[in-house]
Amino acid sequence: MTHFKPVALAHASRLVNHGPTVLVTSADGNRRNVMAAAWSMPVEFTPPRIAVVIDKKTFTRELVMASGAFGICIPGAALVDLTYALGSASGRTVDKFARHRIDALRGPVLGLPLLEVGCAAWLECRLIREPHVEDAYDTCFGEVVAAAADARIFADGHWNFDDSNADLQTIHHLGAGNFVRAGGVLRAAAP
Amino acid sequence: MTHFKPVALAHASRLVNHGPTVLVTSADGNRRNVMAAAWSMPVEFTPPRIAVVIDKKTFTRELVMASGAFGICIPGAALVDLTYALGSASGRTVDKFARHRIDALRGPVLGLPLLEVGCAAWLECRLIREPHVEDAYDTCFGEVVAAAADARIFADGHWNFDDSNADLQTIHHLGAGNFVRAGGVLRAAAP
Repeated sequence: MTHFKPVALAHASRLVNHGPTVLVTSADGNRRNVMAAAWSMPVEFTPPRIAVVIDKKTFTRELVMASGAFGICIPGAALVDLTYALGSASGRTVDKFARHRIDALRGPVLGLPLLEVGCAAWLECRLIREPHVEDAYDTCFGEVVAAAADARIFADGHWNFDDSNADLQTIHHLGAGNFVRAGGVLRAAAP
Repeated sequence: MTHFKPVALAHASRLVNHGPTVLVTSADGNRRNVMAAAWSMPVEFTPPRIAVVIDKKTFTRELVMASGAFGICIPGAALVDLTYALGSASGRTVDKFARHRIDALRGPVLGLPLLEVGCAAWLECRLIREPHVEDAYDTCFGEVVAAAADARIFADGHWNFDDSNADLQTIHHLGAGNFVRAGGVLRAAAP
């Protein structure tokens, strides 16, 4: 069963306000991918818009540019190993969903692959084309068109971090597989 | 005495890799300011470049555009109240350095006001002018030209979060004065 509930678009930017490491999902036709990204931020609350750095050499970038959309999933602490693994391999040569037995659901507005199990929240974003900054800084802007969160950690527009939801608490990549979260430093196993 | 040591530019982006809430400092002639910003991210390791959202209505934005530079200071948990306060008042009408008795040092390259006491690190950044994204998304890009960190929590290019440096651990704004850090949620006093 899922604990996910829709998040009002007016509250969507709050999901990434505190700088969590995220998973970026993408799909174009039969091709799909998921990668980890430490570099993202909101740029506006209303309309909800975010920026995320997606290197131009990645398979994700190719799919995002082809489809005009990307998903953002926010992994909880229980997914620290998976997150590091997803950030350490390219989806060009392997279907990372299959390899890691990830059950992806289909986003309600854009049909993007989205993760819920082990994640605190997800957002579906429509790419806002900005060719110059995409090229110069690998920075991609998107407008959030749908969002949902696990109600055990985000409800009524607010995060609630407490002892009961440690596994859902967000992780923040320090580098080289070391993440920090509420509660201490988690060291990811080598992928 | 200070525990700050220079950080190699190749490691500077790591200082904001994990999404901490930061203080943005600025100065132009006799005018200076410091504000809190939850929305920043690296966009490149080499050269070290970052993006930060600075609303066009703020005094900071005016000073940054006039001077072509901004500082990024990373407050530790001990500064949670100050951080929230600095994010809740405008520097147009009050000198926030004086009001909060902040001792600012002068940055070595750009002369920006920088905080060390209670902070984990700072970066001096030269603004990279991008008028379109500054206007459309309030997103300002900068290249890091100098950086330093408190060696008790960042040394040899790596963060070290442990029980000995809880007061220096970074804070991440959830909204409305609630911050999360390694160790739990901190609630800032009303400014």
